[in-house]
Formats: sequence, C-alpha cells, structure tokens
Amino acid sequence: MKRTTWLAIDLDRTSTTNLQSQLSERLRQAIQSGKLTSGTTLPSTRELASELTISRNTVIAAYDRLLGEGYLESRPRSGIRVKEDIRSFGSSTAARSSQPMKRGATAKRFKFDVPLPKPFRPCQPDVELFPLAHWNRMRNRVLKKFGSGLLHYQSSFALGWPELRHALAEYLRTNRGVQCQWQNIAITSGSQQALFLLGQLLATRGRVVGCEDPGYTGARSAFAHAGAKLRPLAVDEAGIVPPKRRDRLDIIYTTPSRQFPTGATLPVARRLDLLDYIRHTGAWLIEDDYDSEFRYSRPPLPSLHSLDTTGQVIYLGTMSKVLLPTLRIGYLVLPDSLASSLEALRLVLEDHGPMIDQATLAEFINQGGFYSHIRRCRKAYSARLEVFVQATKQLKLPLDFLFTDGGMNQAGLFHDPTVDDRAVSMALAAAGLDIPPLSQYRHKNTPGHPGLVFGFTAYTAPAIRTALKTVAQVFTGLELLPGAH
Amino acid sequence: MKRTTWLAIDLDRTSTTNLQSQLSERLRQAIQSGKLTSGTTLPSTRELASELTISRNTVIAAYDRLLGEGYLESRPRSGIRVKEDIRSFGSSTAARSSQPMKRGATAKRFKFDVPLPKPFRPCQPDVELFPLAHWNRMRNRVLKKFGSGLLHYQSSFALGWPELRHALAEYLRTNRGVQCQWQNIAITSGSQQALFLLGQLLATRGRVVGCEDPGYTGARSAFAHAGAKLRPLAVDEAGIVPPKRRDRLDIIYTTPSRQFPTGATLPVARRLDLLDYIRHTGAWLIEDDYDSEFRYSRPPLPSLHSLDTTGQVIYLGTMSKVLLPTLRIGYLVLPDSLASSLEALRLVLEDHGPMIDQATLAEFINQGGFYSHIRRCRKAYSARLEVFVQATKQLKLPLDFLFTDGGMNQAGLFHDPTVDDRAVSMALAAAGLDIPPLSQYRHKNTPGHPGLVFGFTAYTAPAIRTALKTVAQVFTGLELLPGAH
Repeated sequence: MKRTTWLAIDLDRTSTTNLQSQLSERLRQAIQSGKLTSGTTLPSTRELASELTISRNTVIAAYDRLLGEGYLESRPRSGIRVKEDIRSFGSSTAARSSQPMKRGATAKRFKFDVPLPKPFRPCQPDVELFPLAHWNRMRNRVLKKFGSGLLHYQSSFALGWPELRHALAEYLRTNRGVQCQWQNIAITSGSQQALFLLGQLLATRGRVVGCEDPGYTGARSAFAHAGAKLRPLAVDEAGIVPPKRRDRLDIIYTTPSRQFPTGATLPVARRLDLLDYIRHTGAWLIEDDYDSEFRYSRPPLPSLHSLDTTGQVIYLGTMSKVLLPTLRIGYLVLPDSLASSLEALRLVLEDHGPMIDQATLAEFINQGGFYSHIRRCRKAYSARLEVFVQATKQLKLPLDFLFTDGGMNQAGLFHDPTVDDRAVSMALAAAGLDIPPLSQYRHKNTPGHPGLVFGFTAYTAPAIRTALKTVAQVFTGLELLPGAH
Repeated sequence: MKRTTWLAIDLDRTSTTNLQSQLSERLRQAIQSGKLTSGTTLPSTRELASELTISRNTVIAAYDRLLGEGYLESRPRSGIRVKEDIRSFGSSTAARSSQPMKRGATAKRFKFDVPLPKPFRPCQPDVELFPLAHWNRMRNRVLKKFGSGLLHYQSSFALGWPELRHALAEYLRTNRGVQCQWQNIAITSGSQQALFLLGQLLATRGRVVGCEDPGYTGARSAFAHAGAKLRPLAVDEAGIVPPKRRDRLDIIYTTPSRQFPTGATLPVARRLDLLDYIRHTGAWLIEDDYDSEFRYSRPPLPSLHSLDTTGQVIYLGTMSKVLLPTLRIGYLVLPDSLASSLEALRLVLEDHGPMIDQATLAEFINQGGFYSHIRRCRKAYSARLEVFVQATKQLKLPLDFLFTDGGMNQAGLFHDPTVDDRAVSMALAAAGLDIPPLSQYRHKNTPGHPGLVFGFTAYTAPAIRTALKTVAQVFTGLELLPGAH
C-alpha cells in the first residue's frame, strides 16, 4: 500500500467558494496533475480535518464528491485511495477493447405527475378519440416501407418528409382552396414553432407587427423575441378590424376562420380589405388557420390565402388540434420567395424534424384515416357544443356567448362590464377549473369587456354539465348569480 | 337557369400581373361582393374571350383556377356557374350538421428519393444496429402506462418528459461524472437545437464566442444567427488551445472528448486552463460531448463539467449518434441559473417536444436497452475502425491519421501540405463518395493543413474496403498516389 507524504493544501477562508468545494477542487487538481498518483491512499477524514483545521464533515463531503466523480475509490480495510487508471490517457497501460457501461445501481422508479387538462382549458382536442391502433399500423407500415431511410439523418428534408408535404398540399387545395405546390409546404414542430420561425425570418428588429387584440399570446411572444415591435389591432364582433393604409405595418398576424379567442369569423369584405392593405403596403399577412377543420353548421369562407394574388399571404396550420398535441407537427404554406430562406433557417434551428412521425402522418392522410378522424371529431365536438350552450342557458350564466356555431372554444362576455375577469378566473381555479379570463389575451394595458374563454372539446357531456354547475356555484359565491337554483 | 347581364371587367394590359390572374381576381371579387350570385351561369369561355379580346386559353385557365378554389362549379349541359352557398356565411340558408371532407380524388402515389449516407459521410451511426423491435415494445409499454397523459399538450414539460430527464441525469452521473439533478437537464430536438437555444439565450448581439478552428460549423451558424461575433480558437494535435486571460470572450464552444473534426482528446492540463479562464473572466463554456460514448481502447478523461466548480460549464449531448438521428433528441445540462430562462425560451420556440418518443427513450434507458445498444455499437465500430485503419495502410493512402483510438470519424492529413482538399473532395464526390475536406470546417479565410474527414461507423467492413479502393483510384487519377497497385 502506497502512502503519500501529504501535499500542501491551501484553503481560502475569505473566498465566496465554500471550503468543501475548495477542498474537492484542490484534490482533483492534485490527481489530474499527477501529484497524487493512482493507488495512493488518502489520509482518513479525521486526520485531514485535523491537519487543515476544518470540520470533518467538510472532508467527508469532499471525498464523497470525488468518489461520485470516479477520482477516488473506497476499498474495505484499506481506506479511500486514488482510483486506478484515472490518468491513464497517454500512459502506456494496455488498451482495453471496450469500456464497461455503468447502469445506475438501483434504477429506482421516479415518480412524477402527468397533468391532464381540466375543464374548460381552451384548445384541447379529445385525445381519446384518436385512433391510436390505426396510427400504429400506419407507423409500422412506413417503417417497413422505407427501412433505414427513415432512421438516418435527412438534412435534405429540413422542410419535412416530402410525402407529408405532398399530402398536405393536396388536403389544403381540396379543402381550403389553398393553391400551393408541395414545395411550398414547410413542416414545423407545431404552430408555435411555425410562428417562431416566421418571427426569426420576418419580424426582426425594428419591424412592426400588427397582432389581434385580444389575440393569441404565443404569436406575440414569438415576434417580440425576434425583436419586432407589436401593434395591437382592434377586434370587434366581426373579427380583426383591417388597418388603414397609412398605418405602417410590416406584418399582420390574424386568425380569420375563427378569431382566437373571441370566435368571430371574418367577413369577406374585411378579408378583401386586408388583402388590399398588403397589396398597397407590401406587408406580409400571416393567416393562422388553427382550427378551421372544426365547423359544425356552415361551409367555410375562402381562406385569405385562396383570395390572395400578391404572394404575401403565409398560411399556417397545425395537427395539434385536429390530431394530437403530442405529435408536434404543424405546417406553413410559404410563397416561393420564402421557402429557401426558411429551409436555411430550419437547418440552423434543428437540422430536420423527426421523420418516423412525419412519414406516419403522410400514410395516415393518404390512407384516409385523417379524414375519418376529422369527421368523428366534428360529430363529437358539435354534440358537446350543444350540451355546453344548453347548460349555460339552463344555469342562466351571466355571460353572452356570441359565436356558438363552431371551433373548440366559446368566449363568453359578462353581462356586467365591471366584472374583474382575472379574479373570477382565479376563483374558478380554486374550484379545480381552468377557464382563462378574456383579458389574459389582450395586449398590455388595453382595456376591454371582461369575459371568460371556455374550451369544450376535450370533455364529455356529463363532465361539461358537472363543471358548468361548479361554475354556477362559484358565480353565486361571487354574487354574479343570485342564490341557489 | 339564371343568366347574368354581364358585368364590366377591367383588365390592365400594362400591369406586371398577367391577364389570367387579373381575370380570376376580378371574378373572385365579383363573387365575394355579391355582384355575381350563387347559381349564376358564366358566359362560355369563347364568349368571354371575344368580349374582352383576350385569348380563350386565358379564360379557360382563369375558370379552372376558380373551379379549383371552389368558387365555380361545372354542371353537365348548363355550363359553368357560381357555386351554391359560396357566400352563405351570414345568410339564412339552413345549417348543415357537418361539412363533408373531401379527399384528394386520386391519392396517386408520390415518388421521391430517400437518400442514404454514402461512404464516408462523417457522424453517421449504423442505424441497422438499432433494436427497433425492442424500442417499439418500450413505446407500446409507455403508451399503455401513461395513456392520454402522453397525448395531451404538456407545456409544463417544456424542458422534457421528467422521467427522461431523470434517466439521463443518472446516466451522466454514473458514466460521465456529470454532477447534476434531473432539474438541470433540458431535452432538445437534437444537439443543433440545443446550440440554437444557447445562441438565443447567451450568444446575443455583441457577444463574442470563441469557436474551435477547425470545428463544428453547425455551432457557428447557431451563434452567428443569434447575432454574436465569432472568434476562431486554434486547434492543434492536443485539441483546442485555451485562450489567454486578456482575450475577451463571453462564450467558449469546445468538443474536448474528441475534437470535431480532428479527433484530438483534450489533455487534463488544458481542461484546467479552460476552467481557469472562465473562472477569471466569467465566460460560459459549452462542452459538446457529441460522441464520447464511442471509446474503444481507453477510459475517458473526466468531462469539463465534472471538473468545474464555477457553474459556468454547460454540457451538451445527443441521441443522434448513440441511438438514431431521426429521433431528434438531444439534451443540455444547465446550471440552475439558466434552467428557467431556457424553459421560457422553449415555450416561445415550440411549447414542448414530442412526448411519446421522450417517454419511450426513458423506458429504453431504464430497462437497460440503451446500455446494451451502446456496447453493441462500440464492438461493431471498434472492428470497423480497425478495418479502416488497416486498409488505409495497405493502400498506402498519402494521409496521416492521428487519432485512431475512438470516435465515429477519422481525420486524415495529407502528407503533401499543398494539396487542395476541396478539389480532392469534389473528385471523390464524382466517384460516388462523400468525404468532406478538412478546410470545410475552418473559419473563413483561416489557412491550415489540408485533409479529409472520413466517417467509418455506418459502413460494413466490405463496404469500407471497397470504398477505400475507390479513394485510392481517385487519388491515383489525381497523381496523389503512384500508378496502379
């Protein structure tokens, strides 16, 4: 057994670094520099503590850290010593063919909570409706069909798996009047990433972006992060109010199919005004069509993209609402002029996306599963909307629901314009509900009529009725409703 | 049958917009504004062409576009007319319970090429070694175990599925000496996204980032995109040369385990110098440990993170090399001070990542599949490296391979320092090989010894031998090797 003549260890008692960290660092350096060689036994914790006049616990903790890092090892009856081979790189020790991999000793189960959406969290699809078995069959099919091609790096597919881009182009042409080639489609990891990418590409420092007020806060964060200035654009009962030509905006962000969160559908005249604005100003128009699949009673109006002749409209859609949030698949329809800059940006951002899911989705669309799933969801959501609307009437909730004909959410305006919707939302949260206040979606300091935003799609009819009764009870407690019904 | 008294259509023959687009836009506007009502039959293409004195093909093309967009419909024997219900929003037509979804008529198979890596493209794992069936079993298991929790939005998991963060923390503690809690781990969509996120967080406008030269170009693009200034840091046969204290750098990016692309392993003394630099300057140090799993003969040196006491080292790893590129899973080990800002940034970037894959990977690690896969790859890659090195010697390739003890790539320096490595790489590409020149990884305008970077891990022994013979033939053609062997 080698025993070292002990080396000088300087500890600085005035340093902001604690003594234990100082000690472990000094030992580490001594080992790395070769002053302490492999196999050398260290002094006992008692000896070292006494020599350095520090607490023995400090020494124990420092030794423990180095044991954990693999610098030291503990041998029965021979104390703690510097590990063998710790500095063997560059030394002449015989090469070993392979280093052992160490698994965590216990692999003890780690416990954590997986939250589920509570009523009436907006924009939540009912994932129980998703045909997971069918999806898995499509997944197995593409794994078989494409083999290792699906598993390798595919940087030439930075804009997405070509078959998926092609299937989406066909879907959009046939169902949304969006005239595009598959080369105009870019796959993203959900609509939030699509907005982030557009922010980086277009909403750079000094650019002015007009955003709906109230509107989708995720879009505002993406543009603000990129350095753009945000301008609120008023929203009334018909949706976004188009800006005047003299208003200088570089980009307009809008949700014309169903304004988020109010639910208004933008009339054709306003659509034409928006297109007129971009034609004369050269501004970009971002059309976020996040839930246009969920129409229950009326045919859709033509998308802005389908009405556009300038090539300045960028169309944005997502699979998070229509299929599954966890897929993280969204898409952009880009004019030719932007497709190659977006490709370059995606390579810097993440090279490319996960291809197995993208190929599976292409197969799911091409084999028809996508279309039947939309039909299934429409039927379920339409019935739930009816239950929701009837129950709010029966309970005489003091809210006006303006657009009860589609979408995933219902924005209700309080009859009383003096209600503090944030306080009401907090009281509802305390009762186990998740119903955001309308004011949460407004730009900072913009006043507006108070309201609440209810998502109804992820909850069954009985769950909707029960949760609305709780809403009524909370309202009664807040004196927004007269006593017990 | 309604027949319209025809409306005035102005076409501007001096406009840059072609006549067909002008005509379809005028018709669209007429329909939207109500001048052309539903059911109205349009003039025949011959009539309209004659009336407007334009070519009949122009009219046919404009009608076709509007047919495709759903404004017009074609009825046998009654010609082309404005579609029913086109403006029905806000009208009193009876509500329909659901809109039909239209599938693309033909769903004709779309053909495209899926590229596979050609020898000797660097950094490509052999995806054929991946235990896909085992992975799929783990996937089914977590789908069963977590149910719809895995399918919903999980914005509270913006930094990743907690079980995966926990499993990775354990793996890093046990195998890389990285002392971290699971809360310090952030999951990203591969190491490129990790670098992009660090760029947005730390390498902002005006910051100075020192990057290895030659080095990983993806890191440089990420930092440059964020607005930082890049400074080349020299790399010699021992790896990165640590900067002097007077050099003002805000961030250092380095690959100490195996310098990319040279393959040098950074000696301990230099590791300590780097840590000394950040301790005195307050700079961040990004340690990219992209392929440290692939050691074949020597134990690893301790990671920079394990030697650090400042909390300024950020550790970065990826599953793209050790498992599958297509998974798009990488990770960061962040000091406490950065974890919450990264979480906020990830919410703006993409909300959260795909959870089914993350949960599957956690199960795959916890059940041991990860560790046995690494062992399997090490064995295969180690054998391939031997084949590669022997074949280069037999063929007397005029290259020096400096570090033949690990990794996924072999950088070879030309004996002749006047060789144009880009020209050689292009000649190799013409022979079907993908062998990048060393100069491709250098900062702009930095001179350096010419070389080639060979990845050997994705190719079987016979494929390696065959491809190296082709290399020798190309070299002979370029007079880098004497005539036929």
